[in-house]
Amino acid sequence: MALIVQKYGGTSVGSLDLIRQVAARVIERKQEGNDVVVVLSAMAGETDRLLNLAREMMPRPDPREVDVLISTGEQVSVALFCLACRSMGVEARSLLGFQARIFTDHLYGKARITDIDTSMLRDYLDRGRIVAVAGFQGLDERGNITTLGRGGSDTTAVALAAGLKADSCEIYTDVDGVYTTDPNICPRARKMERISYEEMLEMASLGAKVMDIRSVEFAAKYGVTIHVRHARLASPGTIITQEDKSMEDRIVSGVAYSKNEARITITKVPDKPGMAARILTPLSEAGIVVDMIIQNTSAGGSEDLTDFTFTVPKTDLEQAMKVVSEVARDIGAEKVLGDENIAKVSLIGIGMRNHAGVATKMFNALAKEGINIRMISTSEIKISCVITDKYTELAVRALHDAFELEKL
Amino acid sequence: MALIVQKYGGTSVGSLDLIRQVAARVIERKQEGNDVVVVLSAMAGETDRLLNLAREMMPRPDPREVDVLISTGEQVSVALFCLACRSMGVEARSLLGFQARIFTDHLYGKARITDIDTSMLRDYLDRGRIVAVAGFQGLDERGNITTLGRGGSDTTAVALAAGLKADSCEIYTDVDGVYTTDPNICPRARKMERISYEEMLEMASLGAKVMDIRSVEFAAKYGVTIHVRHARLASPGTIITQEDKSMEDRIVSGVAYSKNEARITITKVPDKPGMAARILTPLSEAGIVVDMIIQNTSAGGSEDLTDFTFTVPKTDLEQAMKVVSEVARDIGAEKVLGDENIAKVSLIGIGMRNHAGVATKMFNALAKEGINIRMISTSEIKISCVITDKYTELAVRALHDAFELEKL
Repeated sequence: MALIVQKYGGTSVGSLDLIRQVAARVIERKQEGNDVVVVLSAMAGETDRLLNLAREMMPRPDPREVDVLISTGEQVSVALFCLACRSMGVEARSLLGFQARIFTDHLYGKARITDIDTSMLRDYLDRGRIVAVAGFQGLDERGNITTLGRGGSDTTAVALAAGLKADSCEIYTDVDGVYTTDPNICPRARKMERISYEEMLEMASLGAKVMDIRSVEFAAKYGVTIHVRHARLASPGTIITQEDKSMEDRIVSGVAYSKNEARITITKVPDKPGMAARILTPLSEAGIVVDMIIQNTSAGGSEDLTDFTFTVPKTDLEQAMKVVSEVARDIGAEKVLGDENIAKVSLIGIGMRNHAGVATKMFNALAKEGINIRMISTSEIKISCVITDKYTELAVRALHDAFELEKL
Repeated sequence: MALIVQKYGGTSVGSLDLIRQVAARVIERKQEGNDVVVVLSAMAGETDRLLNLAREMMPRPDPREVDVLISTGEQVSVALFCLACRSMGVEARSLLGFQARIFTDHLYGKARITDIDTSMLRDYLDRGRIVAVAGFQGLDERGNITTLGRGGSDTTAVALAAGLKADSCEIYTDVDGVYTTDPNICPRARKMERISYEEMLEMASLGAKVMDIRSVEFAAKYGVTIHVRHARLASPGTIITQEDKSMEDRIVSGVAYSKNEARITITKVPDKPGMAARILTPLSEAGIVVDMIIQNTSAGGSEDLTDFTFTVPKTDLEQAMKVVSEVARDIGAEKVLGDENIAKVSLIGIGMRNHAGVATKMFNALAKEGINIRMISTSEIKISCVITDKYTELAVRALHDAFELEKL
């Protein structure tokens, strides 16, 4: 007998009929002799409906009360799920965040789970019941309701799996696994059987929207193996787990891309120590996250001047331009250029650690398609190139082909 | 500085605009220097919407999960109310049943409050905040969410007022007070300034649907004075409180009526000891509440036979007829007659205790209108007559006039 934690997202519980289908699947696993804990999201659209009510009441609503409001979405889901199980003759019990004793810090709207007391949960399991836990919500140390942010139900599931030492943690979603790249762009994309936490983190943060990134971090920290699967298909999905030998044998695992960044260049910056800090400090003070940074000799050719380039989230470009323009004036730089028409394509693979030549092969593949590389950054398991955004799809397919990712 | 508990019902918080209006009223009281605790119901229609979802999932839904489901209604109300206060620049905090530590027994759907720990509530009040408590909900000793049944938010308000030793408990509703009788039937009905708990209990149980009856019981038990008021009108409402001299001076306070009962007569029951118990025991075993009971000599005239008549809720008539028909056969009675076309009109007043002649005056008033009295029952502060239901309105007006209730 195994202990299984399953999570179903909003589209999987988007109607009474869909909730009944989920209940039938869960009951099947239960009747195979397993203990099953189910984590549910709010019915599709419900969180947005509630958020809109809050914003209609107050343009920038108080985050504590927003959490009280939107946590009702998951509460409705678990209650209806338990009724569905009961209507099929199977005992099920719902637990909200405060009942499942999911403790978090007090950052409303983006709280982090700090502890779980699984005693009440275990008690219900011991009495043979299916337990449905409301995802996305917790309780801070002062007894306030908190929510974990978008994708938070994934984290709830992983945290419960860790706390219960579950035999498996299954994340059911509307895709059937993690692909070598976006199948909508590259038809030859292949579903991966296994992927390491580290690779998944890079894939997720670069836009492969299968799982919430914090839930993968949580899984890595506590060694929870995740099985990402399609909510209605029987096919096996992708296992996200600790890296192993087989993973290291692959040099490149996947190709990710992101169109969410913009580039800022400051030209003719005096080439003196401390300049980078002077430019970047006001940005971080404004809460703007800078991703790639490069500094090179100015096109003007002067040895005392340099061009300073970096990327920021596209949504922060306008504010970042304002902040940087002030700094540029203060330090006597020439001008500030913003560019929204960029994209980032990345190769990801833990096998890169032990292989040279991956970057060269990547640059050649892009060059062969006439795609100019405008920025490069590398990490142990990733190489990213910024290119003009209109070439994104072409670049993804070219890289997927060059590294033959369609092959096992 | 006073501590005020206010309760607003579903129609008073039925839209974002109405919630804003309630917030404005509450803030006004706060800014007069009072501490204010607000108890809110679900937005009008929301509880029924959720109940329908539950019933669609399962015709007789599991009561534990129904409570989890429907308690979201009040949760949404308090969150939106606090946002409304915030949007007007005033600090407000919501507390759900588990946070306000409202403990109940474990009768899902009709739980009774057993204890309240007001420490968290007091803490927020001490920090100068308006506190909005979700009505209708509590927590049983095992940590399950319970609800208090229809009208339960009234009880929440009264219980909080008792627990906090509040200076006043104001129940805001869509009528402006308690009337001597139903103003829709009798245009001369007068709003009462004050009414005793006992009278209010009789009024409420007989159909004057101003307040939930259990909240009045609770108020009587803990000596909480209630002020029933209209949610949007400034006029004073009705004070429900302990009886005092001024109330005793009135012989009759009000006229109530009920069309919710049916009458069952068993004819020619052998007139032997133990017959009443034999008839009524199977009814109480079936969970059917019997109200009025009379036994008289059978129309047939035999001295050994009697007719046995009683009333049951109209909704239980069919089941009661079945149960009683079996008993009638067993004891050798003649037949069982059911009658749905009855109504009960009652005079209520604590002054009756010390006054004779009220019954005679009542019977005369009805006789003058040609209304036949079919059953009579009396208690210390009430006289009820069962009549044919088509005369209900006429009877109410006749009694109101006879006792000159329109006069102060």
